[in-house]
Amino acid sequence: MPLRLSRRAVTALLLAALPGAAAGQQGGGDPLPSWREGATKRAILDFLDAVTTEGGPDFVAPADRLAVFDNDGTLWVEQPLYTEFVFAFDRVRTLAPQHPEWADREPFRSVIAGDMAAVARAGHKGIAEIIAVTHTGMMPEVFHQTALDWLATARHPRFHRPYTDCIYQPMLEVLALFRARGFRTYIVSGGTTEFMRPWAERVYGVPPDQVVGTTFKLRYEVVQDRGELLTLPEIELIDDGPGKPAGISRIIGRRPVAAFGNSDGDYEMLEYTTTGPGRRLGVIVHHDDAEREYAYDRQSHIGRLDRGLSDAERKGWHLASMRGDWSRVFPDS
Amino acid sequence: MPLRLSRRAVTALLLAALPGAAAGQQGGGDPLPSWREGATKRAILDFLDAVTTEGGPDFVAPADRLAVFDNDGTLWVEQPLYTEFVFAFDRVRTLAPQHPEWADREPFRSVIAGDMAAVARAGHKGIAEIIAVTHTGMMPEVFHQTALDWLATARHPRFHRPYTDCIYQPMLEVLALFRARGFRTYIVSGGTTEFMRPWAERVYGVPPDQVVGTTFKLRYEVVQDRGELLTLPEIELIDDGPGKPAGISRIIGRRPVAAFGNSDGDYEMLEYTTTGPGRRLGVIVHHDDAEREYAYDRQSHIGRLDRGLSDAERKGWHLASMRGDWSRVFPDS
Repeated sequence: MPLRLSRRAVTALLLAALPGAAAGQQGGGDPLPSWREGATKRAILDFLDAVTTEGGPDFVAPADRLAVFDNDGTLWVEQPLYTEFVFAFDRVRTLAPQHPEWADREPFRSVIAGDMAAVARAGHKGIAEIIAVTHTGMMPEVFHQTALDWLATARHPRFHRPYTDCIYQPMLEVLALFRARGFRTYIVSGGTTEFMRPWAERVYGVPPDQVVGTTFKLRYEVVQDRGELLTLPEIELIDDGPGKPAGISRIIGRRPVAAFGNSDGDYEMLEYTTTGPGRRLGVIVHHDDAEREYAYDRQSHIGRLDRGLSDAERKGWHLASMRGDWSRVFPDS
Repeated sequence: MPLRLSRRAVTALLLAALPGAAAGQQGGGDPLPSWREGATKRAILDFLDAVTTEGGPDFVAPADRLAVFDNDGTLWVEQPLYTEFVFAFDRVRTLAPQHPEWADREPFRSVIAGDMAAVARAGHKGIAEIIAVTHTGMMPEVFHQTALDWLATARHPRFHRPYTDCIYQPMLEVLALFRARGFRTYIVSGGTTEFMRPWAERVYGVPPDQVVGTTFKLRYEVVQDRGELLTLPEIELIDDGPGKPAGISRIIGRRPVAAFGNSDGDYEMLEYTTTGPGRRLGVIVHHDDAEREYAYDRQSHIGRLDRGLSDAERKGWHLASMRGDWSRVFPDS
């Protein structure tokens, strides 16, 4: 190959050349086969046609084609508990033999005993402590491997498949379609950046520099003549709620034109995205499918959707009903 | 055009198709025409050949082709004063009529009086205060426009040209050549992210999401029904010295394989980059050309290069002598 293309360029070329993607642009075929015909699917396709039609009133230059996606509950399952919390609790149990002092100390004692009600009572502070001891005090590369090792064997308690298979097939199609139309697709999640980076490219096609999440402070040090970073047990930036637009500005540097979320933690991201000038798209995945996944919104402790549900119509955000809009939920194992 | 390509993909295609770039790969022509033949030019070209030779022992996959560049003193002139400081001082003078209280308050009084020795005596704290009042309390977009307006009329005191023309032609060629070989090129600077983003793409070909700099805290708010960010007068992250590897990890998420710097503020970035596994490249631009630009290193208050100069040989970092290695310094006006 005489021309040297970046992997990104090759991916864009290949995706653009796919029959589905090309057809999606030209009217034949179905670029979103796991989405049933309906208002939300129509809104997504109309938006993409509008912003990619050169000379049209809503045309968006390729450099500004930025789409942001929440992760937990938007791209993968977040019930009965955020996957990153399940990971952290499992790590506490794995590390417990090296920490005899945890036997008498909350919230560790309750995690080790499997008393999730007691863990919940420890609240944000308790969770933060658990996240800190399981995520920090090591190089990011070491944490990446720990996360990958866990994901390789852990199984979702209801779906009995790896967590990285508990992802939403309709959203994978959305990610691919946006990229085929010249968009860069970013994850903007309340989860930690380093928990997502090691697998987001393989699973979602999102490279490490397009993952925006919660971060810990880092300390640079030289270890055996090699420059290394050490993750410190102190949160640096929380990428949730109003922290999401800030994270977008910090990392991406431009206001996105499309945003996908599912909970009130995505409210500000949806608002920031859709109140910019020109054509915009905001979509909320609504978990209303207890049979195939879960049904929860206003009352849920995990992924609560209350304010967003009340304001969606007024804000022009489209609800994607899992039960109604998605013909399938998960990809084949 | 039936295939929709991102601007990035189009740029990669066009650059790869340029006679110079293609020739650089295949042995004819000169992809770095402003670099004189010598050890440093050879080191850059050998590195690029090695990491892009498929099947070779030093091959680097396209996704890992990341190169980081300091800005002040590496890509553009930083003497007699960092351009961002000149901007900030000019802004203080412009804003002074709205701030009568500055007439009696240091360091503002001295800035307005043009007493730079007194400003220098105010030290880091004084400079930080000046940067805060001139850079914050507004939306990033408003600050971008302010910076662009200033750059459009300000002229370098010695070279009598816009600061964005006081950039190094040899480094523009390096940036283009790295991109032609499938690299993503990032700026990693102690300057603020928002001062560089509005012009880095036009001047260097580096888009906003590939600019890593010092940042201020941001607050999200809704202004006339539109979600906006407000820059707060509080530094969030300092991207200098050991903060550069941390910034690289936070934004890029992978260890770069090539780094270009010029001062001790780039030491840790060079070390972090070049002590990773596999083939690496570290280059220090050495300002030893008082005739065409400036000559400074160990004793300079701006862009001091002391530790880096002492350790370069032992660390395997290449010195690019401005006087010896560069046949020209600036592009045509």
